[in-house]
Parts: sequence; C-alpha cells; structure tokens
Amino acid sequence: MKEINVIKVGGGVLEDKASLRCVLDQCAALEGAWILVHGGGRLATQMAARLGMETKMVGGRRITDEEMLRVVTMVYGGLVNRQMVAELQARGVNAIGLTGADMNLIRSHRRPLKEMEMPDGTRQEVDFGWVGDVDRVDASALQSLLEAGALPVIAPLTHDAAGHLLNTNADTIASQVAQALTRYYRVTFTFCFEMPGLLHDVHDPSSLISSLPEKDFRPLVEQGIIADGMIPKLENAYEAIHQGVAQVVITRWDDLKGLHGTHLK
Amino acid sequence: MKEINVIKVGGGVLEDKASLRCVLDQCAALEGAWILVHGGGRLATQMAARLGMETKMVGGRRITDEEMLRVVTMVYGGLVNRQMVAELQARGVNAIGLTGADMNLIRSHRRPLKEMEMPDGTRQEVDFGWVGDVDRVDASALQSLLEAGALPVIAPLTHDAAGHLLNTNADTIASQVAQALTRYYRVTFTFCFEMPGLLHDVHDPSSLISSLPEKDFRPLVEQGIIADGMIPKLENAYEAIHQGVAQVVITRWDDLKGLHGTHLK
Repeated sequence: MKEINVIKVGGGVLEDKASLRCVLDQCAALEGAWILVHGGGRLATQMAARLGMETKMVGGRRITDEEMLRVVTMVYGGLVNRQMVAELQARGVNAIGLTGADMNLIRSHRRPLKEMEMPDGTRQEVDFGWVGDVDRVDASALQSLLEAGALPVIAPLTHDAAGHLLNTNADTIASQVAQALTRYYRVTFTFCFEMPGLLHDVHDPSSLISSLPEKDFRPLVEQGIIADGMIPKLENAYEAIHQGVAQVVITRWDDLKGLHGTHLK
Repeated sequence: MKEINVIKVGGGVLEDKASLRCVLDQCAALEGAWILVHGGGRLATQMAARLGMETKMVGGRRITDEEMLRVVTMVYGGLVNRQMVAELQARGVNAIGLTGADMNLIRSHRRPLKEMEMPDGTRQEVDFGWVGDVDRVDASALQSLLEAGALPVIAPLTHDAAGHLLNTNADTIASQVAQALTRYYRVTFTFCFEMPGLLHDVHDPSSLISSLPEKDFRPLVEQGIIADGMIPKLENAYEAIHQGVAQVVITRWDDLKGLHGTHLK
C-alpha cells in the first residue's frame, strides 16, 4: 500500500514567515505523497478587525455570519492558500490549492443551533452561522489528483452542495481527510504547531510526552495537563486511529517527519 | 477532435447577482467541456477602498504594490473564485477553482518598467508592480484535469515560479488558455460581458456588429467606433485566431452559446 502523510499546519506557524518557510522546505523534501491542511484563524481575525468587524468566538470556534464568511473565504481560500501554493511551486512542488467545494471534495452541513457554555458560565443556544460539520470526504477525487502528480493544499472551507461555502475547523478537515484516505493509502496524520508536542508542563519544552496511547488521554485531561483547544484536537486524532489511520504525531513545525513529538499510536 | 469553450466572464457580470446566476445556469447546461476565466477588478477596488487603500490605474491596468497584491489575491483567488465554484457545485457541475500557480498552470514574469502615456498627456516610465505577463500555459495539466471530469474556473492570478503570485489580466489569460488548448481541442473562445456584442453606437444596443473579420478591425478603431478597453480585448482575440482558435464570439452574459453577439471568425 502506498503511504501518505496528512499534515495539519497550525495558524501560529502560518503567521511566522520563517517557520512557514521551514515547513514548506520540509514538504518539498518529503519523499512520499502528502496533503497539507492549513488554518488561518488569527489572520482572519486581523483582517476582520481592519474591516471594522468584531470577531466573536464561542468554545474556541468562530461565529461566522455572512460578512465573516466573506472574510474567511478571502483569507483562508485566497491569501493563505494561494500564497502557500505559489511558494511550494517555487520549491519545485506540484501543489494545487483547494477548498472542499472543489471537485466536491468535502461536503458538510451547516451546524444546527447548539447549547454551549458561555464565558459567564451560563448555557445558551448558539448559532455559529456559516460553520460546517463534515459529512463526507471524496477520497477517490483526492486520489485522482495525487495520481496526476498534484499535491493538495486544503483551506478550511467546505460546502453544502447548495451553493454555500462553510467555515470548517481545519483539525476536523485534516482528521476526516486522513480517515477517508485509509481506503487507498497507509496514512500518517501529523499535527504541526509551535510546541515540540504535548507537554506535561506547558512552560517547559523539555517536559514532552513522547507517547500517549488513548487509555492515558482522559486521566491527563482530568489532571488538567491537557486542556482547552488540545482536547478536541486529540479527540479528532483518536477518532482517526479508530478509523484506520496508521500513525498520529503531534510535533513542532521543524519536525514534519515526526522524529520527535508526541506519538499517539 | 473534442470541443471546448473558453469563456471569459467580465467584472460587470460578476457584480450583478442575477446575471452571474444566469451565466452559471448556462454553464451547467452546456453539453461540452468548458473553462471559465473571471475578472473581479471592481470588487478588488471596493475591497481596497474598505481597507483604506487607493486604487491607481494606468492604461486600464492596476498598479499592484505588495498590499494591492494581497487584496487581489483575496478577492480574485478567494472571494470570487471560491464562491463561483460552490455555486457551480450546487448546479451539479464538478468545478475546480484555480490560479496559474496551481499545478504550475500559468507561468508569467513580472512586467518590466514600461513607458506609458499618462492622463495629463506626458509619457512616463511606469512600474506596474506585481503584474504578470504570461510566458506559458500548461495545456497538458489542464487537459488532465478535464479528463478527470473537473471543469476549471480560473482566477486572474499567475505565478513566476519564484514564489510570487502576479496579478494578470483576465482577457490575456483567457486568450492564452484558448491558444494553448488548440493542441488538444477545437476551441471556441467566448467573451461575455454586459453588452450584446460590439456596437456601432455604444448607446444603441440594436447597432450590433454581428461579424468583424480582422481586416475590418483597424478601420473601426480609426473611426473611433472601437476604443479604450475594447482594443486590447480584440487584439487578444485576433491573436487567438492566428494561433488556431476556431471561433471567437463577443456576447452578452445571457448568450453563452454565442447565438447572437459579434463573431470575429
């Protein structure tokens, strides 16, 4: 079975030119096939502010009204995605920049109203707006692009097949893409971000958790060692393992091969 | 030989939701393969203004400094392109949204300083900034996408293979794509815009010039009947004919099949 590496690049990496360049250099040097999935939330928040719009987040997710959907479409689907493709091409990589609407690659539905805990501790029904929850990934269309020699760079946008783009969490997209590709490939799923991996103490980079099998996950959440945004990230990752992904690594942007980092399996 | 229609959709059409919808409906109903090339200049000018930036045009072309390149990348490559793809997918069309950087489809170089006539009649050397003049279109990569069943929607952005996106005139891209595809297809090249075609009198839609062979072109320029932005559009079109394009039509957005309009060949 051929191998593929599905690599999620976090927003913090995108913002720092030197680390982004380092990621793209490593991509160009990888031997096998890969798919990059990127975020861009902080850049979208900056652009929204320049346009006089306030960014509202609930539970770490962006409330995406019509105007905010235009901003994320511009920033994720335009600025970040198109520029990454141009920079990969400069490295001799035959990249292609995609959203989930292209070739109907990732179909989703608009998230229904959801009861959420608010910052003040009350619970409220939240309308996330044009936010998508993924229904299916067309692995055969991705495979046909890969077979044609194109390396996909995927922006965190999907569509509902009714003409709407939907703002969709990049971790979720990466996990779903990794899962779908297990039909054709032996899949490694790599989260790359600013930290060397999961840490026992977030202020001490030497406190790396080098291996985290699922049975050890909940206890670390209960102890407060894994918290906030890392929880859904890891849930996505363990789901990928259940669905047949061979290997999941959480690592820093300078270690795309996952030689260090936290190995979940 | 298979047939293909390379369709350039003008900026005025993109701005008007009803006419854009009509274009996309017609695309979905076309029997053969097609490629859409879109502009978006007026939307970019609006977005630049919202961001407090002034748009400078010389000879109908946008001066594209670093900041303006970011705006056109967002607007052409993100907002306009991604939304068109989502709307085509809603019509059951397997669209894919591309720039010239994707799969190295359209390679260009930054335009050198150019002596131009300024509005005050003086001549000056103009630096257009990150504006690209097309070097080559990879027709075989486009063909491989078409063979995989994907219908390309191309934004007016190319790249220089050194990591820079370049703002590139959509008419030129459409003409170059049409020419390159003659290797594999019998190509029709359709300009669709707000007018029913070329008019003897721009204020009288019934004064349509239904046929304009090249020998009649210069005399109409000399008489002032064809002026301004139409001149380079037609030069692009005649060049396409010289390079083997079978048919060129200039027509209104509600006549993609070119049943009416101005036929150049």
